[in-house]
Amino acid sequence: MGGDHGASVVIPGAAAALARHPDIEFILVGDRIAIEAQTAGYAEIGHRSRIVHTDVAVRMEDKPSQALRHGRWKSSMWLAIDAVKRGEADVVVSAGNTGALMAMARFHLKTMAGIERPAIAGLWPTLRGESIVLDLGASIGADANYLVDMAVMGSAMARVLFDLERPSVGLLNIGVEEIKGLEDVREAGRILRTGNFPKMEYAGFVEGNDIGRGTVDVVVTEGFSGNIALKTAEGTARQFGEILKSAMNRTWSARLGYLLARNAFRAMREKMDPRKSNGGVFLGLNGVVIKSHGGTDAEGFAAAIDIGYDIVRYELLAKISEMLSDHRREDVSAGHVGRAAS
Amino acid sequence: MGGDHGASVVIPGAAAALARHPDIEFILVGDRIAIEAQTAGYAEIGHRSRIVHTDVAVRMEDKPSQALRHGRWKSSMWLAIDAVKRGEADVVVSAGNTGALMAMARFHLKTMAGIERPAIAGLWPTLRGESIVLDLGASIGADANYLVDMAVMGSAMARVLFDLERPSVGLLNIGVEEIKGLEDVREAGRILRTGNFPKMEYAGFVEGNDIGRGTVDVVVTEGFSGNIALKTAEGTARQFGEILKSAMNRTWSARLGYLLARNAFRAMREKMDPRKSNGGVFLGLNGVVIKSHGGTDAEGFAAAIDIGYDIVRYELLAKISEMLSDHRREDVSAGHVGRAAS
Repeated sequence: MGGDHGASVVIPGAAAALARHPDIEFILVGDRIAIEAQTAGYAEIGHRSRIVHTDVAVRMEDKPSQALRHGRWKSSMWLAIDAVKRGEADVVVSAGNTGALMAMARFHLKTMAGIERPAIAGLWPTLRGESIVLDLGASIGADANYLVDMAVMGSAMARVLFDLERPSVGLLNIGVEEIKGLEDVREAGRILRTGNFPKMEYAGFVEGNDIGRGTVDVVVTEGFSGNIALKTAEGTARQFGEILKSAMNRTWSARLGYLLARNAFRAMREKMDPRKSNGGVFLGLNGVVIKSHGGTDAEGFAAAIDIGYDIVRYELLAKISEMLSDHRREDVSAGHVGRAAS
Repeated sequence: MGGDHGASVVIPGAAAALARHPDIEFILVGDRIAIEAQTAGYAEIGHRSRIVHTDVAVRMEDKPSQALRHGRWKSSMWLAIDAVKRGEADVVVSAGNTGALMAMARFHLKTMAGIERPAIAGLWPTLRGESIVLDLGASIGADANYLVDMAVMGSAMARVLFDLERPSVGLLNIGVEEIKGLEDVREAGRILRTGNFPKMEYAGFVEGNDIGRGTVDVVVTEGFSGNIALKTAEGTARQFGEILKSAMNRTWSARLGYLLARNAFRAMREKMDPRKSNGGVFLGLNGVVIKSHGGTDAEGFAAAIDIGYDIVRYELLAKISEMLSDHRREDVSAGHVGRAAS
């Protein structure tokens, strides 16, 4: 029911993902009439899905606390999360209200042992391919231990989605020496450099311009700056696109040039297509929850389902647990006051 | 002496700025031989400048504390700042080590009454023209009062550089409700909404994508996220440029299209030219200090001088003081515990 378009994007998106992964089964949670109006056009979805009906839907403008108060036990968002909680589904994909989805997922699925709060991780198109960036805005601020936990979760995600043995991980920082307020980032760097992390390659600090360059596979930062980075990059890409478009319309020779180069422009648009990297993954919960952009189309929603498919198939949660316990076992054996042991 | 190219960029840059503003006089501080090797090619600079010789130069890799220890009283950076301190110059422009420049400027010029620390403000090209963004990384974190001070300083700068009566000001934020850790941003918003700021128009919260859109004239944030935003935008612009370039080289028809549209591409490059917005202004000091990008060319360095020229000519520091006292007088008269009164 979520997002700007509800079932009219979700069902065609599910159909597109199903065409790529014929073993998916869907539980479609929401208003049966709205859902069936869409599934009528996609027979294959009808065969691979069941509908869980509810009249109640969290609205895009609801605050998280309102959504929890009014939507618990009965809203489509809650029932979808509940399907994961009860083991009936492996992953929730929602285009709905981000804050509500996070609040409900956290309330119902709970965080993994030793993880204090969830983070949102996303795919970021780069000059080298794609990187994972987290936290994109689940919470504000991060102490050294939480930055380390995010490095672990993000690199587990990179192992799963990019099929890497030892993804490289960078901590987002700014390039000024001797500035106060970076103690947590520095301390996280120290832990990542000296700790037992056989399944990631800590690459040190990176700056904002390293993200698009693809300097590392995983970029870790706290949620405020991560969200600002994401939105600023989106804004810059749109700005560039609009300036390019108006430049190509200025003169007849530019328009003719555009026609001749239209395949090149199409290839470029595909490379920067935000739909292909759609899907924010909530990391640190006992269950997989994916947030699709509310304004995306069916192709974008399908991309979010694809991410969920890979995450479940390659056992992201097990990999996160394993990496966290590698790190914490060492904490304990070395006599550190590890949080898992305290 | 500073930057990647020293006098070979600074002197031609000064010549370019002088051509636009024939009333500028320069004090060229540094190694006399290196300077004269350059001024020989620019007779007009010779007539409008004097050289203050010193052998000592702060190196790009020096930490701020090292620079202060070894370069105080004698380095070219210090002597240039000292010329402002003693009223011999109106503005310092340096392409040197940012941290050292900030530390020396702060040490020698001191912060303005009531301003706890300086911020770095920069011009940001947008779809509507240009905006001012601060803090780009002078310090980390900002409480509500400091965010308000930055809003005042940034809007004074917008009045001066953009010739606006009441520039619009936005606080950079992330679009999630009920998230902990945003109290300072919210409180700053409350002060800006209800306070006495006749010379700015507070426009509320903006997100990262609003910067490139030009939603407001002035974007205010603390230095970590501001620096991340700046660098991320630079990285995205470079990424877009490289993808465009390689797309235009893929096929003969794309190359031909590029040739036909080359004027359009040139116009676009000019619009996004980072040299035109070169120059970070240190705000909140008793003097004007401009940091040019270390890697820029003469045209970029000239743009930094131009900013300094306008800032001095239109009396930025007086405008900041006036706006701050408007705000604080009200604090006192309303019985608030204003910092100016406490």
